[in-house]
Amino acid sequence: MLNYADICGKVGELMNWNGKFDGLAFGGDYNPEQWPESVWSDDYELMREAGVNLVSIAIHSWAQLEPEPGRFEFGWLDRVMDGLHGADVRVDLGTGTATPPPWMARLYPETLPVQEDMTVLWPGARQTYCPSSPVFDELSLRLVEQLAHRYASHPALAMWHVSNEYGCHNARCYCDVSAMAFRRWLEDRYVTLDRLNDAWGTAVWGQRYSAWEEIMPPRVAPTFRNPTQMIDFRRFSNDEFLARFRAEREVLRRVTPDIPITTNFMVIRHFNELDYWTWSEEPDFISNDHYLSGADTNPHRELAFCADLTRGLAGGEPWLLMEHSTSAVNWQPRNIAKEPGEMIRNSMAHIARGSDGALFFQWRQARAGSEKFHSSMVPHAGRESRVFREVVELGGALRKIAEVKGSEIESRVAMIYDWESWWASEAECHPTIDFNYRDISHAYHHALTASGHTVDFIAPGVPVGDYELLVVPGFYMMNEQDAAVIRDFVAAGGTAIITYGTGVADDDDHAWLGGYLGPLRDVAGVSVEEVHPLRQGEQVTLDDGGNADVWTERVNLVTADSVVIFDSGPVAGLPAIARNVSGSGVAWYVAAKLDERSVQKLVDRILDEAGLAAIERPPSGVEMVRRKGEGTSYLFVINHSNSAVELSVSGTDLLTGRTGPVSVAAGGVGVVREEDG
Amino acid sequence: MLNYADICGKVGELMNWNGKFDGLAFGGDYNPEQWPESVWSDDYELMREAGVNLVSIAIHSWAQLEPEPGRFEFGWLDRVMDGLHGADVRVDLGTGTATPPPWMARLYPETLPVQEDMTVLWPGARQTYCPSSPVFDELSLRLVEQLAHRYASHPALAMWHVSNEYGCHNARCYCDVSAMAFRRWLEDRYVTLDRLNDAWGTAVWGQRYSAWEEIMPPRVAPTFRNPTQMIDFRRFSNDEFLARFRAEREVLRRVTPDIPITTNFMVIRHFNELDYWTWSEEPDFISNDHYLSGADTNPHRELAFCADLTRGLAGGEPWLLMEHSTSAVNWQPRNIAKEPGEMIRNSMAHIARGSDGALFFQWRQARAGSEKFHSSMVPHAGRESRVFREVVELGGALRKIAEVKGSEIESRVAMIYDWESWWASEAECHPTIDFNYRDISHAYHHALTASGHTVDFIAPGVPVGDYELLVVPGFYMMNEQDAAVIRDFVAAGGTAIITYGTGVADDDDHAWLGGYLGPLRDVAGVSVEEVHPLRQGEQVTLDDGGNADVWTERVNLVTADSVVIFDSGPVAGLPAIARNVSGSGVAWYVAAKLDERSVQKLVDRILDEAGLAAIERPPSGVEMVRRKGEGTSYLFVINHSNSAVELSVSGTDLLTGRTGPVSVAAGGVGVVREEDG
Amino acid sequence: MLNYADICGKVGELMNWNGKFDGLAFGGDYNPEQWPESVWSDDYELMREAGVNLVSIAIHSWAQLEPEPGRFEFGWLDRVMDGLHGADVRVDLGTGTATPPPWMARLYPETLPVQEDMTVLWPGARQTYCPSSPVFDELSLRLVEQLAHRYASHPALAMWHVSNEYGCHNARCYCDVSAMAFRRWLEDRYVTLDRLNDAWGTAVWGQRYSAWEEIMPPRVAPTFRNPTQMIDFRRFSNDEFLARFRAEREVLRRVTPDIPITTNFMVIRHFNELDYWTWSEEPDFISNDHYLSGADTNPHRELAFCADLTRGLAGGEPWLLMEHSTSAVNWQPRNIAKEPGEMIRNSMAHIARGSDGALFFQWRQARAGSEKFHSSMVPHAGRESRVFREVVELGGALRKIAEVKGSEIESRVAMIYDWESWWASEAECHPTIDFNYRDISHAYHHALTASGHTVDFIAPGVPVGDYELLVVPGFYMMNEQDAAVIRDFVAAGGTAIITYGTGVADDDDHAWLGGYLGPLRDVAGVSVEEVHPLRQGEQVTLDDGGNADVWTERVNLVTADSVVIFDSGPVAGLPAIARNVSGSGVAWYVAAKLDERSVQKLVDRILDEAGLAAIERPPSGVEMVRRKGEGTSYLFVINHSNSAVELSVSGTDLLTGRTGPVSVAAGGVGVVREEDG
Repeated sequence: MLNYADICGKVGELMNWNGKFDGLAFGGDYNPEQWPESVWSDDYELMREAGVNLVSIAIHSWAQLEPEPGRFEFGWLDRVMDGLHGADVRVDLGTGTATPPPWMARLYPETLPVQEDMTVLWPGARQTYCPSSPVFDELSLRLVEQLAHRYASHPALAMWHVSNEYGCHNARCYCDVSAMAFRRWLEDRYVTLDRLNDAWGTAVWGQRYSAWEEIMPPRVAPTFRNPTQMIDFRRFSNDEFLARFRAEREVLRRVTPDIPITTNFMVIRHFNELDYWTWSEEPDFISNDHYLSGADTNPHRELAFCADLTRGLAGGEPWLLMEHSTSAVNWQPRNIAKEPGEMIRNSMAHIARGSDGALFFQWRQARAGSEKFHSSMVPHAGRESRVFREVVELGGALRKIAEVKGSEIESRVAMIYDWESWWASEAECHPTIDFNYRDISHAYHHALTASGHTVDFIAPGVPVGDYELLVVPGFYMMNEQDAAVIRDFVAAGGTAIITYGTGVADDDDHAWLGGYLGPLRDVAGVSVEEVHPLRQGEQVTLDDGGNADVWTERVNLVTADSVVIFDSGPVAGLPAIARNVSGSGVAWYVAAKLDERSVQKLVDRILDEAGLAAIERPPSGVEMVRRKGEGTSYLFVINHSNSAVELSVSGTDLLTGRTGPVSVAAGGVGVVREEDG
Repeated sequence: MLNYADICGKVGELMNWNGKFDGLAFGGDYNPEQWPESVWSDDYELMREAGVNLVSIAIHSWAQLEPEPGRFEFGWLDRVMDGLHGADVRVDLGTGTATPPPWMARLYPETLPVQEDMTVLWPGARQTYCPSSPVFDELSLRLVEQLAHRYASHPALAMWHVSNEYGCHNARCYCDVSAMAFRRWLEDRYVTLDRLNDAWGTAVWGQRYSAWEEIMPPRVAPTFRNPTQMIDFRRFSNDEFLARFRAEREVLRRVTPDIPITTNFMVIRHFNELDYWTWSEEPDFISNDHYLSGADTNPHRELAFCADLTRGLAGGEPWLLMEHSTSAVNWQPRNIAKEPGEMIRNSMAHIARGSDGALFFQWRQARAGSEKFHSSMVPHAGRESRVFREVVELGGALRKIAEVKGSEIESRVAMIYDWESWWASEAECHPTIDFNYRDISHAYHHALTASGHTVDFIAPGVPVGDYELLVVPGFYMMNEQDAAVIRDFVAAGGTAIITYGTGVADDDDHAWLGGYLGPLRDVAGVSVEEVHPLRQGEQVTLDDGGNADVWTERVNLVTADSVVIFDSGPVAGLPAIARNVSGSGVAWYVAAKLDERSVQKLVDRILDEAGLAAIERPPSGVEMVRRKGEGTSYLFVINHSNSAVELSVSGTDLLTGRTGPVSVAAGGVGVVREEDG
Repeated sequence: MLNYADICGKVGELMNWNGKFDGLAFGGDYNPEQWPESVWSDDYELMREAGVNLVSIAIHSWAQLEPEPGRFEFGWLDRVMDGLHGADVRVDLGTGTATPPPWMARLYPETLPVQEDMTVLWPGARQTYCPSSPVFDELSLRLVEQLAHRYASHPALAMWHVSNEYGCHNARCYCDVSAMAFRRWLEDRYVTLDRLNDAWGTAVWGQRYSAWEEIMPPRVAPTFRNPTQMIDFRRFSNDEFLARFRAEREVLRRVTPDIPITTNFMVIRHFNELDYWTWSEEPDFISNDHYLSGADTNPHRELAFCADLTRGLAGGEPWLLMEHSTSAVNWQPRNIAKEPGEMIRNSMAHIARGSDGALFFQWRQARAGSEKFHSSMVPHAGRESRVFREVVELGGALRKIAEVKGSEIESRVAMIYDWESWWASEAECHPTIDFNYRDISHAYHHALTASGHTVDFIAPGVPVGDYELLVVPGFYMMNEQDAAVIRDFVAAGGTAIITYGTGVADDDDHAWLGGYLGPLRDVAGVSVEEVHPLRQGEQVTLDDGGNADVWTERVNLVTADSVVIFDSGPVAGLPAIARNVSGSGVAWYVAAKLDERSVQKLVDRILDEAGLAAIERPPSGVEMVRRKGEGTSYLFVINHSNSAVELSVSGTDLLTGRTGPVSVAAGGVGVVREEDG
């Protein structure tokens, strides 16, 4: 597989992707093939009413486009493209390769994905393919080639939507074809078996390999599998999907060099199959799908986290919210419908954090199939419904705030985000199953958000840049280079918050010896001698009145000072929070999973000390985010609370036209063009 | 497969099945092959002591009858038949085909059932066969032919017991043989692939089929499987078992035209593999197996529900309780033994609701095997045991009330019961996993029972008949015809109670557009715009002081009046209960899962308004059911409570011989021949 | 397979295994192949500092020793052996056969273990072999032959460590090779199919076999599998591992007749795959691995139970604690680190109960692999750590108490322990899933321990010997001989405590008829008519103020007297505890799962009546165990409580050198050479 990274970056910059539609993007997935053509004109009329300007089509349409191998049927899609053009709606055209047609499984059963226990996954759902299959590769590229040529010059074509949610459902395939591909990948990575044996620690449990052919994907085994093999298999699987994306992109670039290309990520709590840092430079622009969890009592916090992280992947540039929902989804145990106003708050929160639009899955709610209870812009009940009325309202609001397009967020605070540490936190045989990488990151992100900061996410191992505060949460899998950039940042005067579970292992998942924190011990001024996980439900107290659960550590102070001490539990009397002056900066170390109040207290203290206390702290339950444009700034105020809020900042609310001090109703949104922004 | 439905109905009526034994049937499954022959004479003596008059034999005896392919051993069974005849016990003779012998798996491994993940189910338990296997079909019919000829004129033979609990354990087979049969079934149903693609909604997720050979059973897939494919596979699996039954019946009818034929259903909460409406016309009479759940605090309510539903399948005619238990079963996590008196209450409750007897699994408790802890009429402890003493007591009681045989129940209240809606309520990707079809039906059945009504169950889509009140609970999968019979019923002056979750989809599981309730919107006078499931444990209040959980709906009134309003929750301020006058009748719509007290309150109000308040309402914890014979009636009073009850009705208690006002001890039963019945 | 049992016992006695090292054994598993050789000299130095005198090596080293089939690499192991010898450390040399190299799976995939659903277990963990594989057998013995010859005369070699934790992870293999071996085993056991059909009760559910070839391992089936087949498959699987052990032992005995041979058992709560009574005579001495459960609030009770049981397997002779942990393990959901002092208490508790040493898994904490978070003697943090400091402290303590080596425990109380009853208690289709064989045994063991008694464990069916009190807890699977030894014990004046769930079935898992307790009814003077399991969480009261849950029984008194009566629940008014004079002794019967307080009360009452009240009852939370040597005795006092204890016994505390009345600090240990011991 070729490495397009360099070309890519360049090409991407040339692409004016958000110039392909007027104002902010508004629309959603559109599946006209599920409906009689008589419905299509109704679609166009309702789209016009709502102000839709961009739809995604043909995402799962391979079986419609190529009903038999090599026989293509484009007529229906021609009519859809023309119809949308006529309705003044731009098209994000799917390559249709997310789901192969049933005939592929029949003719080439070896293309079916296989689980770790060798259970074959059969047709009848979607994404029914092995990502390492050369048959799938060849046939999917043949389709893309056809599509690209057919619609290269169609006036409705605004952008390409490659495949769909890569890694969803078929993330890791354990079949024999995948086994061969895995071995090739390992030979690339390790070159010699000795290096692989060392990296995987095969001297443990007698796993030493003497030939590449002996190596298998980590299929089910009598007990815990080799953890480095597991991590490498996740890296390999990530790379296989990335190779599929690059191959399609190559075809599209060749045929339609001016059309921007994206693929929709899934930056969301429950999905971690792909390491999106390895993807972030690959598409022409970043797009994301995001859904709320009905079990989450504060889902807007998770949304804010994901939107910020997506912006990080986009390198701070605007990105596109490719999918979210107007109301309930269909795939959770209890699919909670959104409250009145919640959809608009959600859309605005994504835009506040960098999206240049708000698209939905999907336009018209399906009558049949697995997603028929997934809410849509046009619900089963039809046009006369609260959902469609809110869609129309949102469309109007987006037109009012269209000028925010292209503006960007400025932040003084960054957080390192590491998918590999997330993977490792899910490994077997760790100190406790309660250690949750995502929860740690969320806790500090929320505290900073509540303090009025917008957090930028950065990749591990790259220079930190001009931030003043850096959060390093649960960065389990840390190498020397990862540590060096943090050291440099602190040395240069920055403040770092480093949490428990950081620096436990290196990239091969080998423990750092001589005390955890490994290469970061000097920066934190402490050494972690032993991990003391707590029992289920067990809580310990701190000497500042705070609490912790799940995880405590036996910390030895080297140069750091103890700030907070454990009052009870297995390490009572030892430091829970330590502070170390290092170079011109300060590093804080947190040796336990603090409760929400304690995290907030700590974060506020550190912000204060670092001179980062916000001028206007958001009231409780209110999000405040500022996008900066040319010579002006836009303050988004999203009120998740049950009472109206009045702020001291003032300007012109683009939604109401009102000027003066900002006031936002309970459950409402304000988008304020600031007077002296 | 031939359609015997027409013949069947006719033949059935000619069969005087409950004339084959004196009085009410009393006995159980009898497995003498598990015991040395020396035990048999003891069996006959104890049967005589208990008053047993009917036993079921040879149900799993294929391996005993045909130990090697084509070599039959009938000697032992001859001796059993003769012995029972000598003991004056009539025989319900099993065809032995419920479990093939181990040699079948060895010689024809393709006959083994296969799970959805393609795991083969091996011998060592029972029901080890694929219902679509032609090998199984041929070999099982060969055995039936042999059996039928051998015992055609044996004087002990009273009835045939075909197979056993069809669909138990091997309900859905996903093997390649089943795949071929499924395709044939689909071709019969849909004729063209276009029609199938439309019904299954294969335009969703790119599932369009271009050849029948591409279609598979819904084996495990990368994610949620096509819901219509799932429903069709359940329909197909039901029909495969029905075909097996018909094939055996055909052999038996040919050889022994005068012997009634049955197969034991499993009308019980935890089993829903078969749509028994498709079976109800097929046997010569209906028989059922029923067991209590130890986790159920009021198991007699579930029993009452099932007995009423079984009577519905029997078209109101007497039926036969083929199996229940004297005390504990063996297959639950905790197998709760029955309290003293509970077995007799259970038997009497079945008889009250239409059974012409009470049979048990089984006569003598097994020493070995998986069922050795299943209670029996003769327990491990032997004759000197509370269980056997109660068995003898029950035998005596049944002789005292023998005159109720053949009498029937008259009811003014009916409930539509729809197995397909039950299936659909278990589908993936529905609004909430807490929606439970069976619970909804139970709630209304119990409220009506507590109000003194005996509920008749009717099939969907057939004219409702002479009832005054009709309950339509959670009728998710409703077609135009289903709606029409309800419309006609209300139009003619009936009262209907329609609950949430009704009319959501049609027979293809396509959502009704324009508001749920679909074709029933005019009858209910409301339209359901959106479903608002509640979070786990969440409760909302109603403006009449009631509560609801699990499910609420956004209801728009069209012609109906709002009766009760949601006070809190996602649809606060909107109707929870609405009432609509339609034609000469009234339809009530309930938009939430009310708590038990609220259901009772609503049902009582509606009964009152409809003039259906019972003359004598049963005291709390007491069941009252009336069987009507020629010129007389029998009131069964079953006292599940801890105190004696006195009723104002009077007559002669057949059990005690006492006349006058009815009085029943705590935990006791009265069977009263009413004076002016 | 040959039966070496007789030879074995003899050879074992000649082996002075605990004379192979000075004082008590101290050390652990040592895996130098996981580290650069540069680390080895540091290992030797730290071992010397800690006082290590015995290490186990090469346990999983097959792939290191034979990287390709037939090519052996012994050089590294030569260097390790020489190095250890130079450091004065003796070697427990593993045969390396616990985990075959990856090449075996590649060349002979039929050697992979297969689960009951036919899922293959692949390489990547450990113990990846089918125990019935002739290929594994041949290749493993070839390795053992090589090893034995190479190190036969090495001066460091102290003992052989055959394989590792037999039955861990690959306990039951269901593959076709295993199926053939199972059939051979069954032919040996039953000789004729008729006998097998009778034992398995195949007349139930039509399972009768007509040819041996029809019989399969109990693979997944449509429902509950034949329980006797399940028990026999466990017996067979046990015997297959035992055959592997004997085959290796035979090679080693031939080549190194003077070197003692062991294999490490897993006498621990969560492992019951092997019936260690069938193993106890096979090795030259007994060794055991034991780990605490982090979910257990009193893990030292479980430790005491297991140490006593291990001593029982050793026939009362000293045994060796082969593995325990210095702090946390890695394989539990939450791996709780040990408190300061807890490791020393644990080591001492094992020694108190008969171990002549304390070894650990492992010497140096692994950097890589699945066990990297398993604590070790030298932790990741290195020498400067609380764990290593405590290791050094323990090493010193062991030298101080070295004189206890070889001394033995004397006990007046015994408990019958029956692995087959444990197996049966896990069977499907029993009265309740809450019946837990191990819990019952634990409850009575703890009560006796708290009363100051050390409990000996004895095998079922062997004469009881000179004990005064015998506990028979939940002895479900009891044959006539099992009952006879208990009858003889009581007849001769002993006191027996027999609990519920005893004598339910015989060795074929056939229920005893005429009342449970079967052949023990005369001894207990009661008959158990029916089992009444309780609902989840349900509790019943007794007339002495006690409580019971889980299990109650309907007991009929025959000759016994009722002592305690059920006050509530399904058998209110009937006996909960009965007492029967039988011959010169007394048998108590307990018909329910009493709560902890009630068990203690009952045990104390019985001890009192039997004249077994201890002279000095241990204070709460304190263990007291006495080892008796030649002319002296050693009282181990292990204080698990939070306060110091003073005892009236006196002597010289070997750890402190102090003489006089014994005083032990909170969390501390005393080992007292008693003055008049």
